[in-house]
Amino acid sequence: MPVVHVMVWKGFSNAAKKRVIAGITNVFVEMGVPREAVEVILHEVPKENWGVGGEQASERLKDVQVP
Amino acid sequence: MPVVHVMVWKGFSNAAKKRVIAGITNVFVEMGVPREAVEVILHEVPKENWGVGGEQASERLKDVQVP
Amino acid sequence: MPVVHVMVWKGFSNAAKKRVIAGITNVFVEMGVPREAVEVILHEVPKENWGVGGEQASERLKDVQVP
Amino acid sequence: MPVVHVMVWKGFSNAAKKRVIAGITNVFVEMGVPREAVEVILHEVPKENWGVGGEQASERLKDVQVP
Amino acid sequence: MPVVHVMVWKGFSNAAKKRVIAGITNVFVEMGVPREAVEVILHEVPKENWGVGGEQASERLKDVQVP
Amino acid sequence: MPVVHVMVWKGFSNAAKKRVIAGITNVFVEMGVPREAVEVILHEVPKENWGVGGEQASERLKDVQVP
Repeated sequence: MPVVHVMVWKGFSNAAKKRVIAGITNVFVEMGVPREAVEVILHEVPKENWGVGGEQASERLKDVQVP
Repeated sequence: MPVVHVMVWKGFSNAAKKRVIAGITNVFVEMGVPREAVEVILHEVPKENWGVGGEQASERLKDVQVP
Repeated sequence: MPVVHVMVWKGFSNAAKKRVIAGITNVFVEMGVPREAVEVILHEVPKENWGVGGEQASERLKDVQVP
Repeated sequence: MPVVHVMVWKGFSNAAKKRVIAGITNVFVEMGVPREAVEVILHEVPKENWGVGGEQASERLKDVQVP
Repeated sequence: MPVVHVMVWKGFSNAAKKRVIAGITNVFVEMGVPREAVEVILHEVPKENWGVGGEQASERLKDVQVP
Repeated sequence: MPVVHVMVWKGFSNAAKKRVIAGITNVFVEMGVPREAVEVILHEVPKENWGVGGEQASERLKDVQVP
């Protein structure tokens, strides 16, 4: 406890993945949760599989960069 | 609100993805939810990773086509 | 196939739940998926458990009604 | 983007929920993601519904406090 | 690893929950996964929130018992 | 009912996938659930996308084999 599922657009760099994992883990550690107990699972979703406002993010948000 | 996760077999065409995203979004829009507030996330799962009745869909349902 | 998980704020009326279930199912039926194969699972989340822009929806969006 | 699902044991205080939502959101903001784009959804799970090592957390970890 | 999310209808007895947790954990232990590494999370969903074939399970499957 | 989502590290052999699907299905069949009603969905997650204790499993657990 906890298990954290993070849905992001495909294409996060390895450095960005490390930051997400470390950062979310630290949120819980600062609340007293043992570091070892935190699991963070990144699910990379292609932008054409992610709909916002009824459209694919690959079209609607095509200029937005992934970290 | 809402966030909708759709698990489907891998291989949906881009046209099919658009239909799923637009169609599900419209269900909520017709109920008064602002279009911009609807997120639909497609998770494509290979048929060998999808079990029905204890068997892989790649075997049990191998003749079923993906839209 | 498919399995659809819908995350919504707690408090949907029974009529609204029926509309979501029927409406999402129809999106797939119209694409040729057998009606019996569609599962739609509603997860009701209290607004204080839903964060948008770093704040609880119960505070940030407290005047928004649930269908 | 992103959508973050956080599974925790039931019983988080409202203050703890705020910290989780704000903290996870900030991880992404510091990476350049617009604050408004981050959604964090807390799923509270009763300890008897959470299995670790084949046992319910309500038995195995019964003395562990929830923040 | 692994993390297993089990969606079931609300109303499983405590004995049934124990069986699900122990049984799924054993599937992985028999494959060589350390017992301690298996997490099983039960999500109980009210039958009116679970749609099958476009209808609520509370109507369509109202006579089906929960273990 | 039930729908079971299994998150595992990427790289499970096809034989291992079959064992997971059959094994989890049997847990429910032995409790009286109809075999046809059980769906098991495997989500394979690359080890660099899976964080444990704040680190990627690809680093922290790099010597652990996938079944």
